[in-house]
Amino acid sequence: MNKAAPMIVPRALRIQDDDLFVVDQRLLPHQLCERRLASLADVASAISSMQVRGAPLIGATAAYGVALAMREDASDLNLARACTLLVATRPTAINLEWAVLRMERALSPIADGERVAVAFELARIIIKEDEASTYAIGRAGLGILTELYARLQRPLVIATHCNAGALATCGHGTALAPIYAAHEAGIALHVIVSETRPRNQGLLTAWELGQAGVPFTLVADNAVGQLILRGRVDIVVVGADRICANGDVINKVGTYLKALAARDNGIGFYVAAPLSTFDPDCASGELVPIEERSGAEVRHVSGTDRFGQRVEITVIDESVAVANPGFDVTRAELVSAIICERGVFRPQHLAGDVAT
Amino acid sequence: MNKAAPMIVPRALRIQDDDLFVVDQRLLPHQLCERRLASLADVASAISSMQVRGAPLIGATAAYGVALAMREDASDLNLARACTLLVATRPTAINLEWAVLRMERALSPIADGERVAVAFELARIIIKEDEASTYAIGRAGLGILTELYARLQRPLVIATHCNAGALATCGHGTALAPIYAAHEAGIALHVIVSETRPRNQGLLTAWELGQAGVPFTLVADNAVGQLILRGRVDIVVVGADRICANGDVINKVGTYLKALAARDNGIGFYVAAPLSTFDPDCASGELVPIEERSGAEVRHVSGTDRFGQRVEITVIDESVAVANPGFDVTRAELVSAIICERGVFRPQHLAGDVAT
Repeated sequence: MNKAAPMIVPRALRIQDDDLFVVDQRLLPHQLCERRLASLADVASAISSMQVRGAPLIGATAAYGVALAMREDASDLNLARACTLLVATRPTAINLEWAVLRMERALSPIADGERVAVAFELARIIIKEDEASTYAIGRAGLGILTELYARLQRPLVIATHCNAGALATCGHGTALAPIYAAHEAGIALHVIVSETRPRNQGLLTAWELGQAGVPFTLVADNAVGQLILRGRVDIVVVGADRICANGDVINKVGTYLKALAARDNGIGFYVAAPLSTFDPDCASGELVPIEERSGAEVRHVSGTDRFGQRVEITVIDESVAVANPGFDVTRAELVSAIICERGVFRPQHLAGDVAT
Repeated sequence: MNKAAPMIVPRALRIQDDDLFVVDQRLLPHQLCERRLASLADVASAISSMQVRGAPLIGATAAYGVALAMREDASDLNLARACTLLVATRPTAINLEWAVLRMERALSPIADGERVAVAFELARIIIKEDEASTYAIGRAGLGILTELYARLQRPLVIATHCNAGALATCGHGTALAPIYAAHEAGIALHVIVSETRPRNQGLLTAWELGQAGVPFTLVADNAVGQLILRGRVDIVVVGADRICANGDVINKVGTYLKALAARDNGIGFYVAAPLSTFDPDCASGELVPIEERSGAEVRHVSGTDRFGQRVEITVIDESVAVANPGFDVTRAELVSAIICERGVFRPQHLAGDVAT
């Protein structure tokens, strides 16, 4: 194995003077621009507008949003209001609810006067824990990739979907964490990144892999089936927005189709996610509300014009009816294993073995 | 059944004064613009640039291109040169080769002086036959939809991919022909049209369904799995670029993923294609050359700017590696049946029952 050049993985958020600074992910890869989130309203708007996205990152940002809300008004009423507002910003990713509830449970019994300090401390802990979980996921997943590399004796081709990378978490990502770990360990690899229409989060993945020096190829979502069919993909690794008690995985729309292609061709399909993504109260995937997002996401596409200026164009006009489910359900039986911070588990066993 | 309003299905091509006039499909749905093809070079360029697209339409247009070439120079040498040039414009769709070979075989034994008249006559026959085949496919597929409608007792939801409609043929299309026939027969139906990245041919389908008054909803390619999973699609009908001797289907990239989702959820997956799409000389799908198209198709997206002007923007810049297979392979076992002008057949039986 050759040691790769030092790897610089971008950061999605940082704290400065008790304010949160996040990368505005709507502008990437065309522009790298940081936004200061200094209030509950800032955080709620950043999440609902998808300046901030990615299930674990949404959770951590929302936790920090509760702290910012307490700084504005530490009353019981405002705590309840802030938590309700934040949970309502996005319906599918469970990490959001998990982080906000954790804040609410910790802060509810505390006197108003002490809430601000405890809120900021706990929000920082949630951020740190999320960061640490990504490194642990990276180590757990590295085992799988090391084994595959030893078996195939050639550079690995790993397909992923959407962005489950540094930009989706406080650390090295979920699906990308094992990839970063393997790249750093000198395992030769190449990542197949699917565009992930309609919002093209694959471009975020392309951007951060490019920053980190990890080789990759971008493809249309439709192409992944054919690449798997022709033996040009060795393994699929994706993130998750929610994992149900029975191991069903809810993730970015298009994930299910990749899982079907992986099974049809006998390659591994892995889901990498922190335990905060696990929802033991949700029995199975068909019970999860799938966010129906605005048709505007399908109608309009962003890019740069011939002068290099960022522009948004209309691909489909308002006269055309559009449906836009944001997520899909991949049944547990299609998932080879879940890679979490405590190791690698069969999806059906996650409830019993780990998350209790 | 309620009788629908009179249906006006657009035409992809017409003949006037022995020249061919085609709709420039690169400009749709933003602009409806006709191009005059008056020479071999015009036809070759229209096919390779995808002004003209869709397997049957490419075949018919190429046949007419041979006639135009004969009008320029009816020598043996030019006949051979024209046929070679035309076959090389696109490698995957077999109709192209089929139509050009049919012209070549008919014209080769004929004296130069009579070639022009015979060439134009045969090219017109090929166009007429293709048109007639689409109506026959429509009637054959109508039987399947009528049966399903009777069973479900509610409006049918039919998913399709790419454009296998009027714009892909000389008549009512392949996959869309049964849909037009059913709509005309008063069967209540709704079409789910997938964008079909990277070239967004789904917008062509949206445009022609809109023209014909057939209700539809446009979705990102990624969304179709989830819609099928949640029971919101009753049947999938697509076209084909080539059908192998064993029944394997080569069609627009992304087709395979829809076939997997259809099988996984127990709904029918039908392929509609004229017999000119059948390639008895090709044993199975893995032997078919899959056209690797330019990365520019993935990098750039066309639409309209805020002034309503047609523009092309860059979504992915040149620094990013892109792969762009144009087609994929759907194994015969994933196909419920092939709908062709002679009826409905199991894909594995097409060779023995029909195409011999």
